[in-house]
Amino acid sequence: MKIIDVKKDVLSKNDEIAAGIRGKLKDKGILALNFISSPGSGKTTLLVKTIEDLKSRIPIAVIEGDQQTDNDAKRIAATGVPVIQINTQSSCHLDAAMVEGALEKLGFVGPGLLFIENVGNLVCPASYDLGEEMKVALVSVTEGEDKPVKYPKAFRSSSAMVITKTDLLPHLDLDMARLLDYSTKVNPALKVFHLSAKSGDGLDDWYGFLLSMYHSLNP
Amino acid sequence: MKIIDVKKDVLSKNDEIAAGIRGKLKDKGILALNFISSPGSGKTTLLVKTIEDLKSRIPIAVIEGDQQTDNDAKRIAATGVPVIQINTQSSCHLDAAMVEGALEKLGFVGPGLLFIENVGNLVCPASYDLGEEMKVALVSVTEGEDKPVKYPKAFRSSSAMVITKTDLLPHLDLDMARLLDYSTKVNPALKVFHLSAKSGDGLDDWYGFLLSMYHSLNP
Repeated sequence: MKIIDVKKDVLSKNDEIAAGIRGKLKDKGILALNFISSPGSGKTTLLVKTIEDLKSRIPIAVIEGDQQTDNDAKRIAATGVPVIQINTQSSCHLDAAMVEGALEKLGFVGPGLLFIENVGNLVCPASYDLGEEMKVALVSVTEGEDKPVKYPKAFRSSSAMVITKTDLLPHLDLDMARLLDYSTKVNPALKVFHLSAKSGDGLDDWYGFLLSMYHSLNP
Repeated sequence: MKIIDVKKDVLSKNDEIAAGIRGKLKDKGILALNFISSPGSGKTTLLVKTIEDLKSRIPIAVIEGDQQTDNDAKRIAATGVPVIQINTQSSCHLDAAMVEGALEKLGFVGPGLLFIENVGNLVCPASYDLGEEMKVALVSVTEGEDKPVKYPKAFRSSSAMVITKTDLLPHLDLDMARLLDYSTKVNPALKVFHLSAKSGDGLDDWYGFLLSMYHSLNP
């Protein structure tokens, strides 16, 4: 009897495509970040702000993933950088094949930054390598302290955690020490950023991080 | 050649179990609501508040779904009502078989209210019938206007939408008219509630809705 593990087959095929993407991006000097979070954590808002502030210094392109609509791609397009929207329909995550197809259409020659905004979801995107340099998990201060322990794979597979909407902290009962304690427990190596795209607080650290990674890739 | 549609098979088996659950719950006078939302929209906080305010009037039990941890079940247990935590591990949603197993362990004889808190996720839970009377989609005011159009199945499969954390509205740029417009576009039949479990605003309407549904089932 032969047992076919559909999920394992799908993931191994995905990893193969992702490895190909990673090699190509590296050759072109493109630093790719895969942003994952709950719906409404502020991924698009942070990307728009980051693009506005860095686009004069580094070429940037964006791949947007959503179950439906091109709302996010329109917001990115307004900044003037190239963007492709992927609608995943019934799927709860982007996969490497979708990104491969989007990259062909995007025609981004590099060097530069490639931001991939995944479908808003803390479960499915954690399992899919898209050929990125690193995953970045966002969590907004309104979401409570325990997202890292409730969705550990999302935070374990990420290299950085961005705590967003810090301008709202005075109006919330968030126990920040506990959030940080939980994230350290799940992934001690996580680099943590605190910021508000609205007030601008903390953006300098975030930009410094992006620029230093970019310059490591393109010395 | 025979093509096996794994997803279709899984869903049809799920629907069969869900139909069985629905029949049993109805016989016992148990009104079951399946709560779906993004992670951090405030499902557990609303349930805790609702239980505290209604438990002296109606028997209540809860099934909690999370990828990992029993944090939510502990919060519910502190109210004194029976609760079972399901950890879905790699899965992004509860399914009917999980609920069937939990109901056996819960031993809730009814009549009463059964709250099922699904995994925080706006994609996967929308496709799975758990035998509930209705799905209730939560969206917090911090998540922006466009969740209903971005995750239409979640809002189309729900009978009610609860807009949470309204105490934060003065600190946000949310365009409420647009959020309502989007939700009507996706599902004109959605009953909409605006509330804050923190300030208490809007809870009376929500409780009135629960009580009237409960009394229709148990006249």
